[in-house]
Amino acid sequence: MNLEQMGQAARAAAFILAETPTRAKNQALLTMADALEAAAPEILAANARDLEAARESGIGEAMLDRLMLNPARLKAIADDVRNVVSLPDPVGSELDSRVLENGMRLSRRRVPLGVVGVIYEARPNVTIDIAALCLKTGNASILRGGRETFHTNQELVKVIRQALALNRLPEGAVQYIGEPGREWVSGLLKLDKYVDMIIPRGGPGLHQLCKEQATIPVIIGGFGISHAFVDDGADLVRAIKVIDNAKTHRPSACNSLDTLLVHRAVAAELLPTLSTAMAQKQVELVADAEALALLGAGPARVRAAVEGDFDTEWLGLTLGVKIVADVNEALAHLREYNASHSDTILTSSLSNAERFINGAPSAAVYVNASTRFTDGAQFGLGAEVAVSTQKLHARGPMGLEELTSYKWIGQADYLIRD
Amino acid sequence: MNLEQMGQAARAAAFILAETPTRAKNQALLTMADALEAAAPEILAANARDLEAARESGIGEAMLDRLMLNPARLKAIADDVRNVVSLPDPVGSELDSRVLENGMRLSRRRVPLGVVGVIYEARPNVTIDIAALCLKTGNASILRGGRETFHTNQELVKVIRQALALNRLPEGAVQYIGEPGREWVSGLLKLDKYVDMIIPRGGPGLHQLCKEQATIPVIIGGFGISHAFVDDGADLVRAIKVIDNAKTHRPSACNSLDTLLVHRAVAAELLPTLSTAMAQKQVELVADAEALALLGAGPARVRAAVEGDFDTEWLGLTLGVKIVADVNEALAHLREYNASHSDTILTSSLSNAERFINGAPSAAVYVNASTRFTDGAQFGLGAEVAVSTQKLHARGPMGLEELTSYKWIGQADYLIRD
Repeated sequence: MNLEQMGQAARAAAFILAETPTRAKNQALLTMADALEAAAPEILAANARDLEAARESGIGEAMLDRLMLNPARLKAIADDVRNVVSLPDPVGSELDSRVLENGMRLSRRRVPLGVVGVIYEARPNVTIDIAALCLKTGNASILRGGRETFHTNQELVKVIRQALALNRLPEGAVQYIGEPGREWVSGLLKLDKYVDMIIPRGGPGLHQLCKEQATIPVIIGGFGISHAFVDDGADLVRAIKVIDNAKTHRPSACNSLDTLLVHRAVAAELLPTLSTAMAQKQVELVADAEALALLGAGPARVRAAVEGDFDTEWLGLTLGVKIVADVNEALAHLREYNASHSDTILTSSLSNAERFINGAPSAAVYVNASTRFTDGAQFGLGAEVAVSTQKLHARGPMGLEELTSYKWIGQADYLIRD
Repeated sequence: MNLEQMGQAARAAAFILAETPTRAKNQALLTMADALEAAAPEILAANARDLEAARESGIGEAMLDRLMLNPARLKAIADDVRNVVSLPDPVGSELDSRVLENGMRLSRRRVPLGVVGVIYEARPNVTIDIAALCLKTGNASILRGGRETFHTNQELVKVIRQALALNRLPEGAVQYIGEPGREWVSGLLKLDKYVDMIIPRGGPGLHQLCKEQATIPVIIGGFGISHAFVDDGADLVRAIKVIDNAKTHRPSACNSLDTLLVHRAVAAELLPTLSTAMAQKQVELVADAEALALLGAGPARVRAAVEGDFDTEWLGLTLGVKIVADVNEALAHLREYNASHSDTILTSSLSNAERFINGAPSAAVYVNASTRFTDGAQFGLGAEVAVSTQKLHARGPMGLEELTSYKWIGQADYLIRD
């Protein structure tokens, strides 16, 4: 099939899914979960081929681990699908309803977006994850996985489509672009006749490509510099624990701390303790001149910050440190250095907390909490499609509701406009 | 100023506007409204220059009328600004709030989008309209009006910026790209570093250009084929009145009726009456073969539909007519012929009404009502920024709320993630 045909099939499937009752969608998801476990031999054999090819091409151990499936991981993926079954279906609920002066009952009803295109890298669980979330919300999906998981994804998609067919749902509801070549990605990004939203799941490079090439709305997200500001008067003992958690709980995550801003009044007390805590976790500090002077004697490795350091999302055991005069200077730093994801203030001042909440340009702003909470599961959304750092449609963790749109419904008695 | 500098100024202004209280924003709007009336001599003189240039370039009378300002129209524009003052400010309200199991209070608070870019044609009232709606919602705006209104817009923007300065708000809050040249539009569409949303107000060509060139989310809308389906069992006398209203109330509007679908069982009774009603309003009918046979004897002008007719948004006194077997065939037609804006079913069947509501792919779906209601004022939104026909962010008429995003706010007591 070419992209035009895939688009047509997806749109036709989307019309059917939009009117498929929750029970039927859930039944297909349960079939899918069971079929994933039943097809474990085929899936794991395909995964072994991908792993072998990846090893031959010299991919690093971390990446190999992300590619790798085993029976336990496959079971976890199937269980994730069963979890999606347990979530409430947002489709059909009404956002609001009112009766206009002319007697028209006007409401907004949640509907699926239609067709969702997803471009992702490496991890094969994304294939099942996205297909399940889209199916639950009545959306057709067109998937484009990474080259490294080609064989695994072929098997996974086969299982998904068999589950759809067994439940008399259109196989066009989940389609996978298996052919190699960047032109398939470029083509998908311009398929605005059929596709309603593009979700890139990958690094900034993939997001940039989508922004530049797509004629379809793109959800940009999953990255950004995260900041913590320790205010004068904060509980410094507990502040260190929050900083430690935000930095070292999972350093590779996009909501991990990148830059620590410290109020000048507490720097001399906080920074030596910070150095000790960070040394224990092998975190290297990258400090501005003023912070460097206070950190130099501590046990943690430290170097002077250079141009670009405060623009860097470290995704590892490095932490920028800078002294600021007050909450306003902290906010000025956030704005200059592209805060867009998760930022926190550690303070006991009500007014500074409110200043920070309103002034920080980020998708998620915390008061006295770790930045690590920005996550669909932590926020109780039940599932996470992506973490948006743009301001249109959805911001921050996106769950099932964010895979829906709405339509206006006006009901009346042969009403005309005067 | 170049675009980069305009973007920087807009972003800086947006940070200030985001924290400006409603009262201060309203005061600036009131100053603006008064100043527009006070500056009537300068504005009308500039408008006269635009009109003269337009006449020389041979622009048609309809377009000249859209360009033209007079004291009454200027007063109406100022009153529109005063109306915006009276609307509730959505910024700062909370969408929802909950306490998570770990004790974190998690809420979503409405915030401005940031910087809105608007590209529009002809009518100078759009300049004031958009600037006022953006200011009310704490957004900075970068405006690009049509060449035809250059002098008028220069005067209008001068008044706006004076009103901002008088109220100690940053002048960068409203900026206007006056330089000629398509490269300014292309540049604005790629200013994703500073601009959060692009609203094109114009025809499909402008929307297509924005879709293709923008690296910023674009709100697509304002056009689409509108359909009415007359079901078996409908009140045919009142159905004619609704069709007449939908077609002839304002034929040039995007929510005016383009195609009438008629259930076969009522066609022989409905179509002769329709012909009489349409003949009175000088509407030409464009009919499929079956409808043509029933319309041929009537007084209205009628011709056989050809390829492309049912894909045409008439924007004038033409109406497509087609016979269908039932609601399902009507929905199939809607899907094939790109329904996306406003569609209505005229029926007495509860189940067919529900089928149509759920099956129509449009932003606004009506039961027994004219399509002409798709409009911010009619829907009680108080103001209309655009009518979106895409599914992301907002669909249908967009009011003040649709000029906002939200941020997640997590408040706790030095909480870390386990």
